[in-house]
Amino acid sequence: MADAESTQPTQQPPTEAPAAEGAEAPKVPSKNELKKKAKEEEKARKAAEKAARQAELEAQKAAAEVDYATEFYGKLPLNQSQSRPRRARVQIASLTPEMDGQTVLLRARVQTSRAQGSKMVFLNLRQRTDSVQALLSVAPEKVSKQMAKWAAGLQIESIVLAEGIVKKAPEIIKSATVGDVELHLTQLHLISGLETVLPFTVDDANRPEPPETEAEDVQFKRVLLDTRLNNRVVDLRTQTNQAVFRLQHGIGHLFRDFLDGRGFTEIHSPKLQGAATESGASVFQVSYFKGKAFLAQSPQLAKQMAIAADFERVYEIGPVFRAEDSNTHRHMTEFIGLDLEMAIEEHYHEVMELLDDLFLHMFRGLKQRYSKEIDAVRKQFPAEEFKWREGPEGTLKFSFKEAVDLLVEDGVPREELDDIDTTNEKRLGRIVRAKYDTDYYIIDKFPMALRPFYTMPDPEDPTLSNSYDFFMRGEEILSGAQRVHDPKLLEEGMRKKGIDPASMSYYLDAFKLGCPPHGGGGIGLERVLMLFLKLNNIRRASLFPRDPKRLEP
Amino acid sequence: MADAESTQPTQQPPTEAPAAEGAEAPKVPSKNELKKKAKEEEKARKAAEKAARQAELEAQKAAAEVDYATEFYGKLPLNQSQSRPRRARVQIASLTPEMDGQTVLLRARVQTSRAQGSKMVFLNLRQRTDSVQALLSVAPEKVSKQMAKWAAGLQIESIVLAEGIVKKAPEIIKSATVGDVELHLTQLHLISGLETVLPFTVDDANRPEPPETEAEDVQFKRVLLDTRLNNRVVDLRTQTNQAVFRLQHGIGHLFRDFLDGRGFTEIHSPKLQGAATESGASVFQVSYFKGKAFLAQSPQLAKQMAIAADFERVYEIGPVFRAEDSNTHRHMTEFIGLDLEMAIEEHYHEVMELLDDLFLHMFRGLKQRYSKEIDAVRKQFPAEEFKWREGPEGTLKFSFKEAVDLLVEDGVPREELDDIDTTNEKRLGRIVRAKYDTDYYIIDKFPMALRPFYTMPDPEDPTLSNSYDFFMRGEEILSGAQRVHDPKLLEEGMRKKGIDPASMSYYLDAFKLGCPPHGGGGIGLERVLMLFLKLNNIRRASLFPRDPKRLEP
Repeated sequence: MADAESTQPTQQPPTEAPAAEGAEAPKVPSKNELKKKAKEEEKARKAAEKAARQAELEAQKAAAEVDYATEFYGKLPLNQSQSRPRRARVQIASLTPEMDGQTVLLRARVQTSRAQGSKMVFLNLRQRTDSVQALLSVAPEKVSKQMAKWAAGLQIESIVLAEGIVKKAPEIIKSATVGDVELHLTQLHLISGLETVLPFTVDDANRPEPPETEAEDVQFKRVLLDTRLNNRVVDLRTQTNQAVFRLQHGIGHLFRDFLDGRGFTEIHSPKLQGAATESGASVFQVSYFKGKAFLAQSPQLAKQMAIAADFERVYEIGPVFRAEDSNTHRHMTEFIGLDLEMAIEEHYHEVMELLDDLFLHMFRGLKQRYSKEIDAVRKQFPAEEFKWREGPEGTLKFSFKEAVDLLVEDGVPREELDDIDTTNEKRLGRIVRAKYDTDYYIIDKFPMALRPFYTMPDPEDPTLSNSYDFFMRGEEILSGAQRVHDPKLLEEGMRKKGIDPASMSYYLDAFKLGCPPHGGGGIGLERVLMLFLKLNNIRRASLFPRDPKRLEP
Repeated sequence: MADAESTQPTQQPPTEAPAAEGAEAPKVPSKNELKKKAKEEEKARKAAEKAARQAELEAQKAAAEVDYATEFYGKLPLNQSQSRPRRARVQIASLTPEMDGQTVLLRARVQTSRAQGSKMVFLNLRQRTDSVQALLSVAPEKVSKQMAKWAAGLQIESIVLAEGIVKKAPEIIKSATVGDVELHLTQLHLISGLETVLPFTVDDANRPEPPETEAEDVQFKRVLLDTRLNNRVVDLRTQTNQAVFRLQHGIGHLFRDFLDGRGFTEIHSPKLQGAATESGASVFQVSYFKGKAFLAQSPQLAKQMAIAADFERVYEIGPVFRAEDSNTHRHMTEFIGLDLEMAIEEHYHEVMELLDDLFLHMFRGLKQRYSKEIDAVRKQFPAEEFKWREGPEGTLKFSFKEAVDLLVEDGVPREELDDIDTTNEKRLGRIVRAKYDTDYYIIDKFPMALRPFYTMPDPEDPTLSNSYDFFMRGEEILSGAQRVHDPKLLEEGMRKKGIDPASMSYYLDAFKLGCPPHGGGGIGLERVLMLFLKLNNIRRASLFPRDPKRLEP
């Protein structure tokens, strides 16, 4: 501006008229004529000056139109903790119509950004499972056209710092989860933008899944599971996934909550093992300095040793590893085991009943404390609500033999039922749901032949065992039993299953040193989550799932 | 008994007297003589019968002395859940003098067993951290001499089912933790015995550790750490270890408790990784089907990706693996990381302060809720109580530079202090304790050169960083920082540390897709436990520790 002013005087309009006149007829001007001309020139100059000043003023005004909001928007410098103004920021979920008129500050993702003409922009701002509509409208001294243009051009998924005035919404805004207010933006700054192309939008990723049998929905882009998992960071931002992993958190919390109240101690057992135990075939081998180690398939041995060490009641939440080349909807090579083991006083049903109470505690807890999250998931994965039996009749329990009978009644040939395979398990789930109106039940007294060597045989029929499985929607989610605490019987069991007792001497020693009768079980966290919500694939219940073909991200 | 009665009539005494008389002088007896003789014979027969009956009764009585208690003691059959009488059993800790006269049933270990003469046996019965004195004294119809002999012969560490009458102790019994009552045993059965030689007694293992500098205490057998760890199941039964692992449970509980209340979500990140990241040198390699995988050194990458995925605040409790051939008192190849990460609004001190509050919550919680356990450990590991600062002054915090100055003041040459090594760390701990009377403090603003590539540089001095370590008793227990959330700066940082950004593309992508400013930290669970209790070796704080030389039990 200073420069423009200083150059102004030199920008006089060129006085070419005399030369043109001169070409007509050279004539000596009179004094009066000279005076008149000088006056005219002076007048023209003044007029020109005035025009220039006017133009300048207009330019200034225009310049001011660009500038008057510059401090209210734009990209912030990289946050390196340069300053700490300690200005309170709010959560979208906390916004209510009662806050009408209040100015708030919040950090959020831009879910959508849509200009309406050049003077108004609608933004959908998102925080986890919550979103609110924000409105930017051009206003003198406050919101410039340039600010609106910048806001409309924000790439979706950008992270912004938004200041605005809470306004009660004239009508419920359906596109936002907090629909009874909107935010009239006064400032909008970019905290973090994107430096790559978004593989898919969070909106696309959040759309209801078409039923497996239905043709592709052509109206919207369907995001396939593999694409999601390859770009898990974006996929996890959907309201569905934000809810899924709050529910995962909830299951762990309820599990511990229940067991802490019943005298259990949380333990952490090593995942690195000196020997490939339990079943050598499906164990990952690790290079361990100059030797080798193996990844634990479960905390089974350690938790039993903790019982022999007088811990009485233990649980563990931790990864378990299975080197099985199974590429199904319900297998992963690494998953989270919720394991427990406890000394029993008289009968293994003490454990089985405690596990049943534990599941009821979890189901009730999820329903009561996480209904918002369940509803959010339901929008993308519609499913019949998970059903279990309450009241004095208790959980449905039957023996393996009775389960077989139910399947035979339903038409399955008895000779196929030495074991109940996955297909028949699911069939049984449907039979039970139809007949008993429950998605949750227990099968007790499995044949000894189907169980591991450390399972206690039935006292009367040695072909049966003191073992049980728990089911949700026709899929096994817990396997457990009374364990053998007698070292001679345990060695015998190992030999029967082709395991060399010398390879498990530390484990056997625990029982030789005196161990109380005990039992327990192991729960697959992701399976419980998948089946409670009916997510149809276990990978959806794991933050960064691992299978034989996937080790990243 | 029925058999003995039926054979009784045939056992008449033989009537040999007449034959002897006949050898003297054959004489025809008179009728009177015959009558008299018959009467005498009858009398003798009756006397003999009476004597026989008497002997029989005495034999019966003697037999009953062997037998009258047989049902009150002995080995129980293997518990295979044959029956479920649902008889209530009690905990030793719940016994009080007010229960005087009540009959109770409990399962316990035999800690010691000592006969006093042939008629009395004193047993010390143990459950976890609690013990009570039990007394078995011979009494007609109740406790037989044989029962007492059997009880006195019970191998220590046997598991028994004891029934007895609670009696108020005439004086406090010092050898038991519940010393104001004793148990007058009425029944004692063996649930589970030992089938091997005890490597050491739990009493020996529970004795106070002699100071490292002191000569071996010859009076008692000292159980060396390696012997303990080789026989960890017995070692873990000590009251000290029962308390140590209740405290470990407590730390985890307090950690989650605090973070759950502050909007954190628990996550479970995969331990199997596709690439050897962070620092390739100390990563375990795993055979993964036809390829290979690596064990995660920390959940660092995953938890940051969860922040890029809008989780906002996450924590994880899980194993971390370090392939470092370090054989020190504070290194293990597998330990439990208590990790957290959170988005920050303005400044990384938001995280640092939250972590500080978290530690104060844990210290206070341990002191308040676990004083019994702390006292139990203190008996074996005497240590000055762990000290931290309470009140408005808050936790002691200084910069790396100030820490160096403190060491220089104390005589350490400044040129040795580019980094603060373990020896100087401990020295600093002693200086701080002497000067500020605290075992807990924070050092902020570490030189960038000492921190990993993902650490945010200081906004003014790029040789410094927005990073901190937390210390307990002069040892680091937490390392944390603001992280770089800008992908370009992150790539630059990787290249500076010699890491190929292509090897971490999934991680980099998370930041290219937009990530809020964030920070966090990782805590070593076993270190916190070791240092809070001053156990002097990290292996004592791990259930089944793993180091370069130990993969079992």
